Amino acid sequence: MVNILAINAGSSSLKFQLLRMPEEHVVAKGLIERIGLKEPIFSMTTNGRKLKLIEKIPNHQEAVQLLLHYLVEQKAVNSLNEIDAIGHRLVHGGEQFRDSVLIDDEAIKVFEQLSDLAPLHNPANITGIKEFNKVLPTVPAVAIFDTAFHQTMPESSYLYSIPYDYYKKFGIRKYGFHGTSHKYVSERAAQMLNRPLETIRLISCHLGNGASIAAIDGGRSIDTSMGFTPLAGVTMGTRSGNLDPALIPFLMEKTDKSAEEVLDILNKKSGMLGVSGFSSDLRDIEVEALKGNSRAQLALDVFANRIHKYIGSYAARMNGVDAIIFTAGIGENSDVIRSKVLAGLQFMGVYMDEDLNKIRGKEAFISFPYSPVKVLVIPTNEEVMIARDTVRLATINKKIPKAI
Amino acid sequence: MVNILAINAGSSSLKFQLLRMPEEHVVAKGLIERIGLKEPIFSMTTNGRKLKLIEKIPNHQEAVQLLLHYLVEQKAVNSLNEIDAIGHRLVHGGEQFRDSVLIDDEAIKVFEQLSDLAPLHNPANITGIKEFNKVLPTVPAVAIFDTAFHQTMPESSYLYSIPYDYYKKFGIRKYGFHGTSHKYVSERAAQMLNRPLETIRLISCHLGNGASIAAIDGGRSIDTSMGFTPLAGVTMGTRSGNLDPALIPFLMEKTDKSAEEVLDILNKKSGMLGVSGFSSDLRDIEVEALKGNSRAQLALDVFANRIHKYIGSYAARMNGVDAIIFTAGIGENSDVIRSKVLAGLQFMGVYMDEDLNKIRGKEAFISFPYSPVKVLVIPTNEEVMIARDTVRLATINKKIPKAI
Repeated sequence: MVNILAINAGSSSLKFQLLRMPEEHVVAKGLIERIGLKEPIFSMTTNGRKLKLIEKIPNHQEAVQLLLHYLVEQKAVNSLNEIDAIGHRLVHGGEQFRDSVLIDDEAIKVFEQLSDLAPLHNPANITGIKEFNKVLPTVPAVAIFDTAFHQTMPESSYLYSIPYDYYKKFGIRKYGFHGTSHKYVSERAAQMLNRPLETIRLISCHLGNGASIAAIDGGRSIDTSMGFTPLAGVTMGTRSGNLDPALIPFLMEKTDKSAEEVLDILNKKSGMLGVSGFSSDLRDIEVEALKGNSRAQLALDVFANRIHKYIGSYAARMNGVDAIIFTAGIGENSDVIRSKVLAGLQFMGVYMDEDLNKIRGKEAFISFPYSPVKVLVIPTNEEVMIARDTVRLATINKKIPKAI
Repeated sequence: MVNILAINAGSSSLKFQLLRMPEEHVVAKGLIERIGLKEPIFSMTTNGRKLKLIEKIPNHQEAVQLLLHYLVEQKAVNSLNEIDAIGHRLVHGGEQFRDSVLIDDEAIKVFEQLSDLAPLHNPANITGIKEFNKVLPTVPAVAIFDTAFHQTMPESSYLYSIPYDYYKKFGIRKYGFHGTSHKYVSERAAQMLNRPLETIRLISCHLGNGASIAAIDGGRSIDTSMGFTPLAGVTMGTRSGNLDPALIPFLMEKTDKSAEEVLDILNKKSGMLGVSGFSSDLRDIEVEALKGNSRAQLALDVFANRIHKYIGSYAARMNGVDAIIFTAGIGENSDVIRSKVLAGLQFMGVYMDEDLNKIRGKEAFISFPYSPVKVLVIPTNEEVMIARDTVRLATINKKIPKAI
């Protein structure tokens, strides 16, 4: 029995879970928000007890100290000695990391080189690694990458149709993201289908505020909708997804903005927010659509249309599909989106049961029993994947019993 | 019996055909190249006789004069009075033109307003219209738009996931191109299938140096791969097709280029040229791939991969497809690309016969007779569509007999 701390450090936030392995029991979980900003918030749930505090948290160093303090104070652990290993989420592992990795000084150097590819995320992730290492230098740490799962894509999937030198010189290619989530739900789907993962073709729809679709053939990602960055692919909460590239120079000229400013609009003011004009939150949009707001209806239609088309194209990539998975906030909870996305896929063997589709936030089959293609709702669990990989790769000075 | 002159005026070129209608007989056809540049070339074929001259052609006015002179001189017509109407290709008809239109002063004003959307093409097209009108002011002229056929797309297909205001203010939306070709081959496919166009679902692959795919449901385009401009969609000879939009600011920074310069690279140095590193011409690439050039092989794979995925997504748009059409230079001639594109679509009922697939440049079925989805090769004929629409819309002072 070991305790694994799963960490997701952002530029002003730190998300954490303490998991007891191999039971995968969540001992504590929480979030530190607004680090270095006004009124930082520390929230944690331990054994059903909720704690929420406004504290002074000027930087990540203080955030880490605070977290470790409250883990002991709230009796998640008796002492810091009980934290056996730490798993850190890293957004970008480039082409260097096809799997999670035990962190050492050499690895950190490579992570820093990769920051160029994910300037918004990797530096914050690395800060998290370093701060924990200062306080708990003897506790092994493992890095888990959003991109690693997609490193199995073939060249014809990941290469853009631009001068080949740009790939060699600047690393421009499709990397894909949400890999930890796509991997988790694909493994879970194989269990639910009671079939070896190696023998099945899956399309996984991770639909949250960020959204990506993956084609997973025999457990290997062979294509995914996000690209060089998480802006690409389908319509998202505030992100545009794929566009005619000529739109960027056109918008720069028309609006007299810089490329960076246009990019900022495509990341933060586009997607369902841009189309609906009032919200990036699917729940708000569904409510307004029901009231007859045509722009809200349009946002739902555009979002579903893009996902629907990816499902068709990824079925074509694998000459058919055995199961389609919905996960993440929208995928787990919105029967409206699932229904729209799946409408008109009978030609490829998808028959969804509208009654079963009413499920929210639970593992379930939502296709008719006779449907050749199964449709599954599977709540994602990136933290458990982080903990599993951490147990697998960290050298922990304890005997780990086999899973019960 | 009437003579229709079909004109496609570019910025330094003028392509023409003289068709006798309703027989659709090509009396003369040719091309004026390098207008206003060094060593302009005039070439024309009339009744099997070929003419090729290097002439002084400083501008479009001279080009039109020259063309009309040689049409009489080569006895394509006895006098200019025998030209009954002119059909002009216009690249962009915006949202204003859902069909071809008889040209008057009012129409020209609208064409000029639309030049903002197609600054490289519409102005040259309009110059062509004006120059012919100067010389033949009493001959009716009709405009045929590349975009018109796609105006039937629903809002959820044509709207980008960016702030809605950009659609209203700047007309930013998917327009689609190659409409005249997609329309021609879809009508021809219905005839070949011996089924009413209104009842069939088609996916049309126009694969030339520019390439676009269209989903045509009951004769109406409901989605297409090109977008706001002809840069979008699949990999092309020199164009990138869709990209992660974040790549443009990234490339600007890395290469120290302006947005316009990066756009120029995406239009002229990308696509199969960019991937292969040596040619945009599929024929060259096929030859090198056969010799074992891995980058040439990769260019073929990337190109086919993108088209393959569109076919899957457009089948999903229509809940299946009745026939897939290949047209334009590559679509009509490359068995290699057709074979790669169609590989692994059995799940949706596509069974191609590799023997039949050897056909080049002729109308043919290339699917097995038992294939639920038919695959057709259909040479495109945009000029005949221009001539048909011209006959339909021009008020010609002659009795036109019914088609024989």
